[in-house]
Amino acid sequence: MPLDAPEPAGAPHASACQRYAAVRAATLRLAEPLSPEDCGAQSMTEASPAKWHLAHTAWFFETFILEAHEEDFAPFDPEFRVLFNSYYQGVGAQHPRAQRGLLTRPDLATVLTWRDDVDARMQRLLQREPLAPEVAGLLELGLQHEQQHQELLLTDIKHLLSCNPTWPAYQAPPAAPPPPPAAPLVRWRRFEGGLVHIGHDGIGFAFDNETPRHPVWLQPYELATRLVTNAEYLAFVMAGGYGEPAHWLAEGWDWRASQGIGHPLYWRQDGHGWCEFTLAGRQPLVPAQPVVHLSYYEADAYARWAGARLPTEAEWEAAATSATPCLSGHFADQGVLHPLPAPADVPEGQPAQLFGDVWEWTQSSYAPYPGFTPAAGAVGEYNGKFMVNQYVLRGGSCATPSGHVRASYRNFFPAGARWQFSGLRLARDVR
Amino acid sequence: MPLDAPEPAGAPHASACQRYAAVRAATLRLAEPLSPEDCGAQSMTEASPAKWHLAHTAWFFETFILEAHEEDFAPFDPEFRVLFNSYYQGVGAQHPRAQRGLLTRPDLATVLTWRDDVDARMQRLLQREPLAPEVAGLLELGLQHEQQHQELLLTDIKHLLSCNPTWPAYQAPPAAPPPPPAAPLVRWRRFEGGLVHIGHDGIGFAFDNETPRHPVWLQPYELATRLVTNAEYLAFVMAGGYGEPAHWLAEGWDWRASQGIGHPLYWRQDGHGWCEFTLAGRQPLVPAQPVVHLSYYEADAYARWAGARLPTEAEWEAAATSATPCLSGHFADQGVLHPLPAPADVPEGQPAQLFGDVWEWTQSSYAPYPGFTPAAGAVGEYNGKFMVNQYVLRGGSCATPSGHVRASYRNFFPAGARWQFSGLRLARDVR
Amino acid sequence: MPLDAPEPAGAPHASACQRYAAVRAATLRLAEPLSPEDCGAQSMTEASPAKWHLAHTAWFFETFILEAHEEDFAPFDPEFRVLFNSYYQGVGAQHPRAQRGLLTRPDLATVLTWRDDVDARMQRLLQREPLAPEVAGLLELGLQHEQQHQELLLTDIKHLLSCNPTWPAYQAPPAAPPPPPAAPLVRWRRFEGGLVHIGHDGIGFAFDNETPRHPVWLQPYELATRLVTNAEYLAFVMAGGYGEPAHWLAEGWDWRASQGIGHPLYWRQDGHGWCEFTLAGRQPLVPAQPVVHLSYYEADAYARWAGARLPTEAEWEAAATSATPCLSGHFADQGVLHPLPAPADVPEGQPAQLFGDVWEWTQSSYAPYPGFTPAAGAVGEYNGKFMVNQYVLRGGSCATPSGHVRASYRNFFPAGARWQFSGLRLARDVR
Amino acid sequence: MPLDAPEPAGAPHASACQRYAAVRAATLRLAEPLSPEDCGAQSMTEASPAKWHLAHTAWFFETFILEAHEEDFAPFDPEFRVLFNSYYQGVGAQHPRAQRGLLTRPDLATVLTWRDDVDARMQRLLQREPLAPEVAGLLELGLQHEQQHQELLLTDIKHLLSCNPTWPAYQAPPAAPPPPPAAPLVRWRRFEGGLVHIGHDGIGFAFDNETPRHPVWLQPYELATRLVTNAEYLAFVMAGGYGEPAHWLAEGWDWRASQGIGHPLYWRQDGHGWCEFTLAGRQPLVPAQPVVHLSYYEADAYARWAGARLPTEAEWEAAATSATPCLSGHFADQGVLHPLPAPADVPEGQPAQLFGDVWEWTQSSYAPYPGFTPAAGAVGEYNGKFMVNQYVLRGGSCATPSGHVRASYRNFFPAGARWQFSGLRLARDVR
Repeated sequence: MPLDAPEPAGAPHASACQRYAAVRAATLRLAEPLSPEDCGAQSMTEASPAKWHLAHTAWFFETFILEAHEEDFAPFDPEFRVLFNSYYQGVGAQHPRAQRGLLTRPDLATVLTWRDDVDARMQRLLQREPLAPEVAGLLELGLQHEQQHQELLLTDIKHLLSCNPTWPAYQAPPAAPPPPPAAPLVRWRRFEGGLVHIGHDGIGFAFDNETPRHPVWLQPYELATRLVTNAEYLAFVMAGGYGEPAHWLAEGWDWRASQGIGHPLYWRQDGHGWCEFTLAGRQPLVPAQPVVHLSYYEADAYARWAGARLPTEAEWEAAATSATPCLSGHFADQGVLHPLPAPADVPEGQPAQLFGDVWEWTQSSYAPYPGFTPAAGAVGEYNGKFMVNQYVLRGGSCATPSGHVRASYRNFFPAGARWQFSGLRLARDVR
Repeated sequence: MPLDAPEPAGAPHASACQRYAAVRAATLRLAEPLSPEDCGAQSMTEASPAKWHLAHTAWFFETFILEAHEEDFAPFDPEFRVLFNSYYQGVGAQHPRAQRGLLTRPDLATVLTWRDDVDARMQRLLQREPLAPEVAGLLELGLQHEQQHQELLLTDIKHLLSCNPTWPAYQAPPAAPPPPPAAPLVRWRRFEGGLVHIGHDGIGFAFDNETPRHPVWLQPYELATRLVTNAEYLAFVMAGGYGEPAHWLAEGWDWRASQGIGHPLYWRQDGHGWCEFTLAGRQPLVPAQPVVHLSYYEADAYARWAGARLPTEAEWEAAATSATPCLSGHFADQGVLHPLPAPADVPEGQPAQLFGDVWEWTQSSYAPYPGFTPAAGAVGEYNGKFMVNQYVLRGGSCATPSGHVRASYRNFFPAGARWQFSGLRLARDVR
Repeated sequence: MPLDAPEPAGAPHASACQRYAAVRAATLRLAEPLSPEDCGAQSMTEASPAKWHLAHTAWFFETFILEAHEEDFAPFDPEFRVLFNSYYQGVGAQHPRAQRGLLTRPDLATVLTWRDDVDARMQRLLQREPLAPEVAGLLELGLQHEQQHQELLLTDIKHLLSCNPTWPAYQAPPAAPPPPPAAPLVRWRRFEGGLVHIGHDGIGFAFDNETPRHPVWLQPYELATRLVTNAEYLAFVMAGGYGEPAHWLAEGWDWRASQGIGHPLYWRQDGHGWCEFTLAGRQPLVPAQPVVHLSYYEADAYARWAGARLPTEAEWEAAATSATPCLSGHFADQGVLHPLPAPADVPEGQPAQLFGDVWEWTQSSYAPYPGFTPAAGAVGEYNGKFMVNQYVLRGGSCATPSGHVRASYRNFFPAGARWQFSGLRLARDVR
Repeated sequence: MPLDAPEPAGAPHASACQRYAAVRAATLRLAEPLSPEDCGAQSMTEASPAKWHLAHTAWFFETFILEAHEEDFAPFDPEFRVLFNSYYQGVGAQHPRAQRGLLTRPDLATVLTWRDDVDARMQRLLQREPLAPEVAGLLELGLQHEQQHQELLLTDIKHLLSCNPTWPAYQAPPAAPPPPPAAPLVRWRRFEGGLVHIGHDGIGFAFDNETPRHPVWLQPYELATRLVTNAEYLAFVMAGGYGEPAHWLAEGWDWRASQGIGHPLYWRQDGHGWCEFTLAGRQPLVPAQPVVHLSYYEADAYARWAGARLPTEAEWEAAATSATPCLSGHFADQGVLHPLPAPADVPEGQPAQLFGDVWEWTQSSYAPYPGFTPAAGAVGEYNGKFMVNQYVLRGGSCATPSGHVRASYRNFFPAGARWQFSGLRLARDVR
């Protein structure tokens, strides 16, 4: 749930109309390389068709803003209320999640027309001055929601295309300088801990799960100055890491065995060595790049093998708010859509890559902060009801829209999920 | 496997080129009402996307005819050989059946281009005179195969659209006279049995599973003069037939319970009574129409409740070859794509609806005829390797192309399948 | 359903009381080597605990005879009516089959007391003269039923003990002469076919599924003069038979792959070569012995690899009734409980091992004979309701009580079952 | 992992020999009411047969103490090392957990003989003076381990007997005064929080997962002065609590639906109202008793419905160490084996029932404490490798041996587990 947000975080000086148009247009641009078939298919229950993302984000504005605040509201199509409801029990029934790929009607063109219709009606509503605080809050929530689905659209399409044995590309490989042969040396940066405050400070937008800001006591700890790389993770693979139970959580060991897993999700070994599937198709594995598409189990096992551990989310956030400059990083807007090697020129001992590139698994279970209260109404289902059996990831990724994340931002996925751009940074105790 | 077929059964005087063009064009017409999304989705493992049907039938001609007989053969796209191989182990690997809906590439346009390319090459090959007997045989097999996939395309699309809670229509309801209030009275037609011959007589095309023609001894039996209707089946439903184990095979009773089944696949009960999903969308249940979309278990349970039984395939075939005129019936070419009530004007005691309307479940397990030998090579996998745990259906349906079936034609599906246009005719012993 | 049986087949001159006592005592002898724990466990849904077999056979007499014919009937324990009902819907509810191993109460001692109680009451009832025909029929049915469970008790215990990694023995290996180094040469015995009659001829007991006797037309065929041996089947395994799809039914190929199967159920390969689990524990594989514990899929694949096929049940029965002397063979009463090599001294060209040693898979789906009518009442559920997706086996095995089988006897199991003593004899067409 | 423990917590003045004998004998007493069949069966993968518990606890001493410290060590039976290894990868292979109920050999008598043998050898070893510190530590760990399995033996037997439709009793209902008509009024007890220390203080035994002791910052909070009762939970059931998604975590809502759950595990409603299955068989539901056998999902849903929440484990532990007297409660030694109503005479505002009666779900995911290090060697697998997707329960239950728990004790189970004696105490924020 958004706090009051007179100046939205991501675009402080844009008017509501401009910001709305910009975020909505960005979603369409992501769908441009895709055919109607690409947009319709669903490769697993956890992922959704691109068309569904396009529709559901229109549904969000129509259901939570237009329905309550538009004069003479009439839905574009009353059946869409159920078809494109994700999980809001307060709104009513939902089409079964696992069958989103079977909704060949409405077709893509109709969904795009719906989006245009919602956009026109939203713009009319936003031009009424002044914007009611409740509408302003829901607007910002809707745009943040739209940005989350932009990232999901990319991760879901990547998974879908990976299921095609021809490994087709979503986009051409971006022109880029050759990657450095090795990542910069990793170092440990010490943090003293003690009583720190985490959670959102109230400046700009935040989801309800980032609140309330509260004190946490931390023991002294250290964080690695960059992300774990492909080269480092490959050493784990080559050392037989997937075959040695001592490295793994018991549940991870069983997960690995039952699914026949021996490397990150999109890695393959062929006659030419290791390659990986990217949104630009098959690419050789670049040693200096951060390893990506790991489950919590894999991240945890690697850390144990490396004599370290995953950070807690409080450790991560305390580090992210003490470091300067904090929010820069490699995000989706650069168009690469794949993590990049750590820069060579980071000031010594400063943690690099805290933001962007890959979401960093933390060892923290996703749980309510002390004093947490979900938002009133159906939007209160946004975050709170998922606070069990999920783990927190921090920092955003190369598929996250720039300006969307912040130090207090809490992403969360089940321990076995690995189709997100998820990787890790090592932590360790100070003894 | 085709027998030698100088004059193909379905179109005796057409040239090979004309017949090829006609059959191939019919497939395209069936796909015309469908969007690219409609063509791409797969609603269950047993069904295939329409695009896959379009592609696999091109694959058949390219793989089994062009590859062996075209000069300077080069595949349209070498990756299609695996992507669109259904189950021919002799040809090599196959894309997993359950994941056909994830093949968003090639897109529909590319598949249609491939079809055009194959058609052009086939026409060039067919214009070479004279056609080698092996090519003629494979050509006819390919066209019969194409017709089978025309029917599957319809049944698979029907299932897919039924999964959309809005029940969208494939086509507009055909203009038709109002159905009669009741089907003609059903009578029993006696057959004396004795030593009869079944199997294909060698005139025209037949699949290998229809051969060899052989003697079978039959006890005297009776067949109902028409199909079981919706009204009759509804009486079974209303009498609690789905709740009384005495009517059911033990496996059927468990099947019904585990899937929560209480009526035919596409029936629903709403405030206005019973309706059913058809290719023309939601329609009220028409009492005089044949009941359709039954599993073997349901057909068997109904027959037992009615004090009768299912016919054997030999009983059915003996009846179908003794009746005159035998091959007329309601097929897909009429465009209705839904079974029609039995005609009122059938000569008394003659079995009506033996051909067309609905496939009739027999009690016969799908097994090799005495002396059966599959065809040589990969096409020998067409039929023989499925001869276990399937039951034979006879007579064709309203979704079968006209001219495709014959009295000796053996269709087969597992006992739980009900997305085909499957219904039943009663049989009983003479005591 | 039993026919009238004034002189029961298995023991023509014994009085009803003596025969009852003898069959019931044989069941107890089979359980003697077993501990209460052995008797309580259930290793898979298809198998039952020995204690359950002991209880269910008591249930059969109490429910179908005592309840209707005993004066002042009172059940031993009214809860047992549900606990030990196998599948008779006409009797009422059943304890779930998969949870039979969880019935630790009643304990084994109580079940044995129940058996004693039922036996005493049955003996009192049987001493009333004369026995009503209905009681005589149910008595014989109950004893035949008891004998079927004697065999199942052995196959189920064998499966259970095989799940223990220590492979404990049910009994000590019987003293026996060393097996011959090789089985006698196999030959083909020709049968002319034509119009033959199969089914029970009405002399002595038969199950309802063996009736009515009826004519069948057979093409000429040949049967192998003995069963397929371990040596022959091992040649199939060593030739890569489990890895070549051309030998397999499509469903068998998938069955094999999904379950990781590469040899018969109880075979293992260790440092000393091939061994197999028997009721006498681990034993080296004896080349001359019949191969046993095959599924239908495996029997069918072997036959295809060998250039032959499985016989139909009519072919088997016609051969079994034409050969002399027909019912001798190696049955459970010899105490070996494992198939033995074919005798060397069979008259040339006569089929040996038709009865006993291993049940022989036929290619015939288990279906009603023409004119079949199940028995009235709940015992009518004995056979008829299983007539789908099962295949017929003929001839009895080394675990079948002597005198229990006959030429018309139809055993049936699903195609994937292989914990029964099931093997095969080859057949082929005469061309 | 045990800390050094010269004077074990549970029995400070007993000699090692006496303490060993007492704990081991207590296990046998728990198995006394059980038949060999009762001891052999396994009702679900998560539960183990009583015989397995008896064997595995012998295995622990033989494997971790005798093998390393006994002169001329020889295992009782070398095959038991694999058969009764629970999950120690460091020791080697394990028999599959789901198949423990199939180990009918060794039988119960043999397992009891093994226990006697291990006990005699352990006593000889313990009489050697002085005990090496490593042995002393492993001894205490083994005894604590034995006590954990005493509780599991009871919960597993309860589950097994509940699967028998006759609901047989493990023991006779204990003679007891009639329960009070209502529990004492519940009150809220305020705790100020701030910087508190949790984790084991080093006095006496503790598992490694209770260490290291460390500071935690808590916001002010309140705890209910007693456990939630059957009467209170029944009000939630009757109010439709299982049918209203707003009360539930999303995963809990799905869990409930997929398993058809509408009340606590052992509750049933019959013609006489609500009853529950207990170790003394079927008993009427006692309103004043604590509700028990809840999953985390149910405990969480109830708390939300009641306008409260679950406590964190730190809140619980801080309260448990501030209250006096802390460790008294209703444990297994009283022989009731079912939770009892809260006493009426607790000093006002003091939390009652913190120890014993039911394990209290906390909202805390089971995670390593800051600085946690598992023990070296295979016993290091005892706790640490389970630290994912489990939730912490505190305080012990009516099935926990007296003296086994302490304020820092961390029990843990997956969110869906409810066959343990698990209930809840409400907590809430101070605003």
